[in-house]
Amino acid sequence: MTLVIPGIAKLDDSIFVNQLTSKINNKTKPLGSLGQLETLAVKIGNILGAITPVLHNPQMVVFAADHGIVKQGVSAFPSDVTWQMVENFLADGAAVSVLARQHAVNLTVVDCGVNHEFFPRPRLIVKKLGNGTADSSCGVAMSQDSCDQAIKNGIEIVRALPGNAFILGEMGIGNTSAASLLFSKFTDIDIELCTGAGTGLDSAAITHKTNVLRQALEFHRSLSRPAEILAAMGGYEIATMVGALLEAAASRRVILVDGFIVSAAVLVASKFEPSVLDYCVFSHRSGERGHALMLDYLGASPLLDLGLRLGEGSGAMIAWPLLQSACVILNEMASFEAAGVSRESQA
Amino acid sequence: MTLVIPGIAKLDDSIFVNQLTSKINNKTKPLGSLGQLETLAVKIGNILGAITPVLHNPQMVVFAADHGIVKQGVSAFPSDVTWQMVENFLADGAAVSVLARQHAVNLTVVDCGVNHEFFPRPRLIVKKLGNGTADSSCGVAMSQDSCDQAIKNGIEIVRALPGNAFILGEMGIGNTSAASLLFSKFTDIDIELCTGAGTGLDSAAITHKTNVLRQALEFHRSLSRPAEILAAMGGYEIATMVGALLEAAASRRVILVDGFIVSAAVLVASKFEPSVLDYCVFSHRSGERGHALMLDYLGASPLLDLGLRLGEGSGAMIAWPLLQSACVILNEMASFEAAGVSRESQA
Repeated sequence: MTLVIPGIAKLDDSIFVNQLTSKINNKTKPLGSLGQLETLAVKIGNILGAITPVLHNPQMVVFAADHGIVKQGVSAFPSDVTWQMVENFLADGAAVSVLARQHAVNLTVVDCGVNHEFFPRPRLIVKKLGNGTADSSCGVAMSQDSCDQAIKNGIEIVRALPGNAFILGEMGIGNTSAASLLFSKFTDIDIELCTGAGTGLDSAAITHKTNVLRQALEFHRSLSRPAEILAAMGGYEIATMVGALLEAAASRRVILVDGFIVSAAVLVASKFEPSVLDYCVFSHRSGERGHALMLDYLGASPLLDLGLRLGEGSGAMIAWPLLQSACVILNEMASFEAAGVSRESQA
Repeated sequence: MTLVIPGIAKLDDSIFVNQLTSKINNKTKPLGSLGQLETLAVKIGNILGAITPVLHNPQMVVFAADHGIVKQGVSAFPSDVTWQMVENFLADGAAVSVLARQHAVNLTVVDCGVNHEFFPRPRLIVKKLGNGTADSSCGVAMSQDSCDQAIKNGIEIVRALPGNAFILGEMGIGNTSAASLLFSKFTDIDIELCTGAGTGLDSAAITHKTNVLRQALEFHRSLSRPAEILAAMGGYEIATMVGALLEAAASRRVILVDGFIVSAAVLVASKFEPSVLDYCVFSHRSGERGHALMLDYLGASPLLDLGLRLGEGSGAMIAWPLLQSACVILNEMASFEAAGVSRESQA
């Protein structure tokens, strides 16, 4: 299969950024007093190429798949929870479902490789590459062809989506293991620092998980190309997200990143195309061990730090109204001149 | 004048808190995985005395007044900005205006003592106690009678407000000085650690401000009763907020606290009635020096940390949807049983 990675424009128009900054600096407030929200407003304006950016038709997409490495006892929950939670998403009972509804954001679920046959439904996209990956601790998780197809699927899914804001979430029992492996492999950070409790392991179980992952890294130590590494240690949902991220950036959408696993997909996507990072807003610093370190590696300043570690896109949905606030400030606040408010006289 | 402080119920019903906690623990998510949002949901349920709490008719109230201490050169902006910003709030051009509109929250402005005569308008309440306070660096800011009247005004304002969520903001050139004075006086923390840049002083100007405030503390060193201290060093808007906070807690409303100045009013209110803190949700850790320390003193865990330092209630409005998210999670998520999702099996 020939995989064509979409070209992503680097966002380096400093004149435009200066225009956005000067627009914000002229609003009726002390300079810089809206802190990170000002940076966010400039970033959104820059991504959308608009001095008056409007986020429209935001799309929350949850990518789901199962993971063969679960048979090594790396998760607190059984694999069946993956398909059960997909049903829960579609039945509007999960955290991401109720939060998306709160903010009137459209929610779609993609079966990228769940070990279950779902009956067809309106908000479910089936782009299944298998009934879960193989066990990456002693072999490749998926073939290179499957991995390339997953990336292609991600590209196609985003091409078909309306709107200019793309919000990613994921579901997959075992996928913190895949994310930790990718993180450690791509950064050479010791696996112990990259591995956390996932859905709720105790410390003995975390030690076991770390040992399994260390063995997997050893098994795949010769690999160096991003596509190979992703196929060997990733997951179907992670590979699909990599394609989705690349296409979302190529089509100049604001990308809202959830927690540890989505961030790992961003890390991988950045190894294909570093400019993808220009389009990413990081919603929160997760309670999952390794996420803070990963965010530092990516140079990301997350919006929230609430100890969230649920995944699904729940953290991204909780942060979503802050993106709207950033636009509202940029677009609707009065300037000093328009409001007749005096400027600084410095005491 | 006889000032009657409303009685506030201490929220110590552990059986009810356990019911709320167990409801959340039964939702389809790993235990505790929604972090601080779970704590928030329990707190809101506990305040409203409801297992299925619904925030209705939230009221954003901005308390405004001028400060005599400004003549000592403690602010980067001239006093006229207070009334100009009140006009801006009412004309829907300020940060708090556009953010309140974003979230469909009703905004009211109270003139507690602005040095300006406003023409009457629907969303403006005039409870004026003077055209700004006197200079607290060399005398009392207001008489005890005025201070008591301000507290009474705050009580009456909240009594007349609908809804079960009360969001406070403030406007008053010079009011970071009043807040720093109250903070230092009530906690014995050195004034230098309590004093910041306000609307944007440079470091030389901060040193000058600190010296002025140190002199004010020296002038009022003999005072010890909360009501005396508030009259001597507070502001009309701060005293009015103290009354409003006490009444909001007495009527079991969820109180959403903004930044440094509103937190200072909470600190003062807690010296009248410590239980007021049970009803307060702290929206953010401000970029204003001293706020982090003040939050620690109050035992508060703010929701956001975005370097905001605008005041007006803007940080509270940015955090507001998180309170709604907390309720949505508690009220709308499915339980494991209802969704047919398997529980932990621990690896």
